[in-house]
Amino acid sequence: MADRSEKMKARLPRGFVDRFPEDIRAVEKMMATIREVYELYGFEPADQPLIEYTDALGKFLPDQDRPNEGVFSFQDDDEQWLSLRYDLTAPMARFVAENFERLPKPYRSYRSGWVFRNEKPGPGRFRQFMQFDADTVGTPGVAADAEMAMMMADVLEALGIKRGDYVIRVNNRKVLDGLLDAIGLGGDENAGRRLTVLRAIDKLDKFGVSGVVELLGAGRLDESGDFTKGAGLGEAQIDRIVSFVTAVVDANTRNQETLANLKRALGDFPQCEAGLTELEQIALLCGAAGYGPDRVKIDPSVVRGLEYYTGPVLEAELLAEIPNEDGQIVRFGSVGGGGRYDGLVSRFRGEPVPATGFSIGVSRLMTALKNLGKLDISEVVAPVVVLVMDKDTESLGRYQQMVTELRSAKIRAELYLGGAGMKAQMKYADRRGAPCVVIQGGDERAAGTVQIKDLVEGARLSEEITDNKEWRESRPAQITVPESELVSAVQKILAAQAEERARNQGA
Amino acid sequence: MADRSEKMKARLPRGFVDRFPEDIRAVEKMMATIREVYELYGFEPADQPLIEYTDALGKFLPDQDRPNEGVFSFQDDDEQWLSLRYDLTAPMARFVAENFERLPKPYRSYRSGWVFRNEKPGPGRFRQFMQFDADTVGTPGVAADAEMAMMMADVLEALGIKRGDYVIRVNNRKVLDGLLDAIGLGGDENAGRRLTVLRAIDKLDKFGVSGVVELLGAGRLDESGDFTKGAGLGEAQIDRIVSFVTAVVDANTRNQETLANLKRALGDFPQCEAGLTELEQIALLCGAAGYGPDRVKIDPSVVRGLEYYTGPVLEAELLAEIPNEDGQIVRFGSVGGGGRYDGLVSRFRGEPVPATGFSIGVSRLMTALKNLGKLDISEVVAPVVVLVMDKDTESLGRYQQMVTELRSAKIRAELYLGGAGMKAQMKYADRRGAPCVVIQGGDERAAGTVQIKDLVEGARLSEEITDNKEWRESRPAQITVPESELVSAVQKILAAQAEERARNQGA
Repeated sequence: MADRSEKMKARLPRGFVDRFPEDIRAVEKMMATIREVYELYGFEPADQPLIEYTDALGKFLPDQDRPNEGVFSFQDDDEQWLSLRYDLTAPMARFVAENFERLPKPYRSYRSGWVFRNEKPGPGRFRQFMQFDADTVGTPGVAADAEMAMMMADVLEALGIKRGDYVIRVNNRKVLDGLLDAIGLGGDENAGRRLTVLRAIDKLDKFGVSGVVELLGAGRLDESGDFTKGAGLGEAQIDRIVSFVTAVVDANTRNQETLANLKRALGDFPQCEAGLTELEQIALLCGAAGYGPDRVKIDPSVVRGLEYYTGPVLEAELLAEIPNEDGQIVRFGSVGGGGRYDGLVSRFRGEPVPATGFSIGVSRLMTALKNLGKLDISEVVAPVVVLVMDKDTESLGRYQQMVTELRSAKIRAELYLGGAGMKAQMKYADRRGAPCVVIQGGDERAAGTVQIKDLVEGARLSEEITDNKEWRESRPAQITVPESELVSAVQKILAAQAEERARNQGA
Repeated sequence: MADRSEKMKARLPRGFVDRFPEDIRAVEKMMATIREVYELYGFEPADQPLIEYTDALGKFLPDQDRPNEGVFSFQDDDEQWLSLRYDLTAPMARFVAENFERLPKPYRSYRSGWVFRNEKPGPGRFRQFMQFDADTVGTPGVAADAEMAMMMADVLEALGIKRGDYVIRVNNRKVLDGLLDAIGLGGDENAGRRLTVLRAIDKLDKFGVSGVVELLGAGRLDESGDFTKGAGLGEAQIDRIVSFVTAVVDANTRNQETLANLKRALGDFPQCEAGLTELEQIALLCGAAGYGPDRVKIDPSVVRGLEYYTGPVLEAELLAEIPNEDGQIVRFGSVGGGGRYDGLVSRFRGEPVPATGFSIGVSRLMTALKNLGKLDISEVVAPVVVLVMDKDTESLGRYQQMVTELRSAKIRAELYLGGAGMKAQMKYADRRGAPCVVIQGGDERAAGTVQIKDLVEGARLSEEITDNKEWRESRPAQITVPESELVSAVQKILAAQAEERARNQGA
């Protein structure tokens, strides 16, 4: 029963999206630029499959029938649990561990691809999204972390973000952990409170020092009347944390100043010493290479979410103020982050394999670049459409020949393949954004000619019909040329349109 | 307990592979070329997510607890079944149906990406592989099918496959189905036998006419003594099929001849008429555009596996003879295929939405191109490595500065980030394939110089130590230059190496 009412509904599962030409082209252009920078830094391409053993991904282990939330998992026919990767770092760690002997060490690689989160989707939150990572495995030295910071600065500048419109913030988990331990929040029994403290620190940008103080203490009442319960710390504890997060006085604070303030705040805690020295080295190495605090900034308020970080953590932030989904002008914020994860490869090896990396959120960065007008893809010209006036096979053959000639001259071109009449064909060409159409009816054929309609000029003329008389005369919206001049006539129109685009962009 | 014996095993699930730099670069280069041709033909990029509702993918419907074999499936938290896509066509059909009104029609798009098959992996058979498709939706005219055939010929030539080393074979399901119906194999009750017949036809290349006759009749005993049961057809039925599949006499048969032979063989079957006319039109359209039977060949022995094809079917075959995995020289065979699938979008729409497409098997095509030496990526130069002689932060800063200078001149470069000594650092540079290393120890530093070792020249010298005296004098394997000349000296070495590579390739 081919009943219309029985037809299947075409729909996407929640949290997944189709991508359209403009986005695809923009992402491709952006990723080519990122790749260029990663290559320049001597990283090599790598690629792992999208599916791994659930236990190899770590963190998310099978729980009774079904593994934990967060990942998409399914059982293989040998009953083993498989999962779609939730990031690119965990599969990379599996790969390095599996191929440890054959890889040069340090192993420097980059990879991009889709990752999946089995979470509730929301605005701007998808269940499939793309990351673009770089990792250095096999070195404990913070020169590798410093390099990540500098490379991310270079990536953003290569993408057209001006210096001053972004910053790479650097903190160190060791300092953070040392501080929490020193003020009596160490040990498993304080895990919950530590998390509350980290979340409070993370809010410095949003609520300022007074807000953080409230969140560290009894709690904070926001304007809407919602109350967030605080960490319940005492005054001395809060003071320590505040002097830690306020080590950066303002946007102009130099890294040496920040480090001096940190030492003053934490100098009596031996737990913080190693971490502070690492931050000092990172600042020195970046400074020596010319990356000052306007690009790479020591900033104790950086807290990265992932649990596997063990040392320096980084965050790339766009400072540019961009309209958000509700039209409010806001600072765009994080477009990527990373840090040191010394335990991830070691899990498989039973020996220390220190590592550090950085991950760019591709879709988020693309959204930012589009808003900033940095992803111009106007150089992509839509195809010339050869219309079909006579539908017999012999005529189709002739039209096909014209298309082939245009393509041989590297002009994007297509034969109209639908069944519609002249008017609908013109509408199709218009929807495609075709620069011009080629027409040969019976009269033209008898005369050995073709007609070419310049759709861009045509549209312009119909808009400003009284203006621009001179230009109209020099570039007619429609011409008739001998068949043999088809290609050169089309080339001329495309060149004129390109010139006009360039002129308009310059204006 | 961080017991060594408790460490996790790093392993990939069966049927999945890690990709290495050379392969990734080769595939990228190949896909850029395919994309260029698809764009030239006026197709636009598109992209669907990797996960769809299982029923939207069709063919594989949930079966009790778990959906059919063949796809990876899992239940969403609202109990609905989701699957990883098994090809790019089914998600494309869902997308077009869902966005039908907003798309220009015909809708011409291309897409590439990973697809998944939940099957037993074997040599060359993976559970994750990449396809690169083009599709035209919304036109019943075979001009669209003819275009697919010509475009695939152009793709192969753009990739460097010489004319005569490949062929695009074209058949029509309508002719095949008409023939089977005419000889009494129509109806559901004959589905199994039809499949056996199609499989027999598919073996023409391998077993020749006599082998096919056996497979259509009682069965075939192969050299190893294995018996394949036949379709059990009678002589008259077999004769008809044989005269059908032998319509192509040899490699030089012209399409008009093949079509005449087909008409002679099937002319009295009205069920075959429409299909034969379509084949005739395809041959004419391709011929008019200059694509003769040396490129696009009507060939009734083409049988495509997928069930959704309803009209013309295509197969791109490489004729070049290439060593297979066992070292035998064999014709490489199919690198892609496609055809008309008029029912796939209609399923969602309740109205006819005719469509046709083509899919390239990316990994398989890459394997062929590599074997044919068509994927040269030798222009990718490994990074220059700046060695670390002194490990204090101040020295590291100076080395970092050199690296930054090289990168500013667009030279791939990296600081050695490991903890090893001089000898191991040289070994690392060697494994990376570094063109040269930069060294500054205490003496050089005091003198304000750097030492540069040309690793390519060094390797050559150690091989042919007595030869080539002249060359050795003109290009030393090791030089010392003032710090300020670092970049220009490295540039000179890279230029000399590039020249030598070009000379060797020319030879």
